[in-house]
Amino acid sequence: MPALTRRPEPLTSPAAATVFTMVLTQGPVSRVEIAKRTGLSSAAVTKAARPFIEAGYLEEMEATEHTGPGAGRPASPLAIRPEREYFIGVKITDDGLIGVLTDLRAQVLETDHRPLADARVESVLADLAALVAGLRARRPEYGERCHHLGLSISGDVDHDTGMVRYSPFLGWRQVPLATYAAQATGLVVTIENDVKALTAAEQWFGEGIGLSHFALVTIGIGIGCGLVIDGRVVVGAHGVAGEIGHIPVGGEAPPCHCGGHGCVEAIAGTGPLLAAVRAATNRPGMTIDEAIQAAHDGDERAREVFARAGHAIGLAMAAMANLFGPARIVVTGDVAGLASYGLLEGQLRQTFAGQAFGAAAGCEVVLRPRTFEHWARGAAAIAIKTLFTLRER
Amino acid sequence: MPALTRRPEPLTSPAAATVFTMVLTQGPVSRVEIAKRTGLSSAAVTKAARPFIEAGYLEEMEATEHTGPGAGRPASPLAIRPEREYFIGVKITDDGLIGVLTDLRAQVLETDHRPLADARVESVLADLAALVAGLRARRPEYGERCHHLGLSISGDVDHDTGMVRYSPFLGWRQVPLATYAAQATGLVVTIENDVKALTAAEQWFGEGIGLSHFALVTIGIGIGCGLVIDGRVVVGAHGVAGEIGHIPVGGEAPPCHCGGHGCVEAIAGTGPLLAAVRAATNRPGMTIDEAIQAAHDGDERAREVFARAGHAIGLAMAAMANLFGPARIVVTGDVAGLASYGLLEGQLRQTFAGQAFGAAAGCEVVLRPRTFEHWARGAAAIAIKTLFTLRER
Repeated sequence: MPALTRRPEPLTSPAAATVFTMVLTQGPVSRVEIAKRTGLSSAAVTKAARPFIEAGYLEEMEATEHTGPGAGRPASPLAIRPEREYFIGVKITDDGLIGVLTDLRAQVLETDHRPLADARVESVLADLAALVAGLRARRPEYGERCHHLGLSISGDVDHDTGMVRYSPFLGWRQVPLATYAAQATGLVVTIENDVKALTAAEQWFGEGIGLSHFALVTIGIGIGCGLVIDGRVVVGAHGVAGEIGHIPVGGEAPPCHCGGHGCVEAIAGTGPLLAAVRAATNRPGMTIDEAIQAAHDGDERAREVFARAGHAIGLAMAAMANLFGPARIVVTGDVAGLASYGLLEGQLRQTFAGQAFGAAAGCEVVLRPRTFEHWARGAAAIAIKTLFTLRER
Repeated sequence: MPALTRRPEPLTSPAAATVFTMVLTQGPVSRVEIAKRTGLSSAAVTKAARPFIEAGYLEEMEATEHTGPGAGRPASPLAIRPEREYFIGVKITDDGLIGVLTDLRAQVLETDHRPLADARVESVLADLAALVAGLRARRPEYGERCHHLGLSISGDVDHDTGMVRYSPFLGWRQVPLATYAAQATGLVVTIENDVKALTAAEQWFGEGIGLSHFALVTIGIGIGCGLVIDGRVVVGAHGVAGEIGHIPVGGEAPPCHCGGHGCVEAIAGTGPLLAAVRAATNRPGMTIDEAIQAAHDGDERAREVFARAGHAIGLAMAAMANLFGPARIVVTGDVAGLASYGLLEGQLRQTFAGQAFGAAAGCEVVLRPRTFEHWARGAAAIAIKTLFTLRER
């Protein structure tokens, strides 16, 4: 059994976590600037940073001349030493594992894919152990300085206890995945819902840097959402949050697999979308790729179905923005979701603008293609974030 | 000009704010219990509490015997001295002022109502000054120990700058109300959107005590919502949040005053609701009271309209719960909203339960009648909360 945590020695106080996180996510940055942005005193910043420098996590860059206001006084920015520690992130899908090895800044250095032999827990763990071992073996320093593994999986995942409460795609219920994966790999393991993991990656290393309120919306088989409010990923009192796919924008119809009616996902999820294109074009054997192609080729019946999906997603995004007012919404998705985005986008943006309330319409909507490797990077980011965040009591 | 703040001397650190807030909202409570709930050391709790005791805000109760586990060791719980300071809260409506004077725990001790002569800013300020002076004159100690006034008003209110950006009912735009009211009354003034103020009052002194995730939904002319996530009232990046009234649950129709379509408010707000009952019953001169009465008397056409409104509100509440996962939703409203609640409730609960996703359906929905005086108390609560919260940098 590995240790349950290998928290870095310098992480001794909230101030230490704040200073390190700022350099990690926004560095290189001078002590003066850190003090300004965090409200800590210069002395407190220096005190917090020193042990991280001694432990090799941070380094002092050569003094540079200020060129902005107050120019002339030399500043020695603090920077991350990204090769100080490595992390593995794995996205578990229903038919395969996608793994990445990253540095401390979640930059992807190595990747690997592995099909799943089957979906039984022990079988997945064996595949996982082989994938992880293969990635760590690629360079000696990975073996030496990689101790943390993040796993992301769709469904109801309890980050705190390491339990997969329910994974519909794999058919898992109440699987203590973090414990099992730690035993199988010898690493310290963090698990998270895949959308929340991707949201955390954007928050620390992507489109959410410096934003206290932002959202991520994923389009694909499901329509998912991660929310960051006041700098924290929203979890909800019962572990349910971000279920934008089940906002009822469609009135009484259609029925959704969740038991509700008119859910976005029952209109714009890949399955219902394909069914609607098949029905509209009278081509019952059509694949999703063919449906997308038909719409791109100008088939008005297919185009109409995609526009309706864009309308539904735009309504749900407006509902979300009206409730919590994000500064930015990042829209992404799986392969089919991304391929269809061009067909949805115009109507999505138009509907969002029409339904967003007052200043909420000022929210920026950006599309960012995210491959499975980005999702695996999200899992690594969760491992990084967990390691450098002090738990609140 | 009054001082911009009269923050109590003992409020010197985050720990001091945490300890005082816990006694204020959950006391009487022993130091041991405070340490347990906050994660602070016993020494830190004692150090933080002492200056509040010396300044008369807290007192030590007589030692009691524990009766639970660890019984036998005497504990001296800390309690608030509620009469240490008084607060005035005023809800400003389009035709009147509702004022309350409260103690430190937001208990209402005095009330007063005053019709507005007209909606001009200077006229409202004159009425406000008279109302405040009258409340403070009722007892000598109010004059001596009441320095803070909270104002709540519907619309777009910037708590931080004290600016009413837009009040649709009063026709105000960009009114620096906090500054003007401070000049008019001689008190330190805090202002807030009325729904957010009521939410804050529930958070500290009502149904939200001890809950990190909860929501307040108000039914009336508008359909409003206040959200508390991770213990904080959600404000949004652009100042817009909680606009549950503009979640599009009604499809393409009806059009809403906000420019959107199918908004909850365009179905279940008092105006559209009355219009629908008038149309259904063919009684164009009907008042809202008569509409409610007709439904209570068994007019099926009227009852159907109310059930439809309950359905729309239930859908919107489910959307909100699916996104944020509150532990509890408090439903309240203005006079007409409350009177009609009995007509909405059955359908509202049924729809909510059907549309809430998975564990989000575990969210408790409670009705709490709140009069205008409760709303005024919300304004006082904002003044209290502002006084005892250290601003984050």
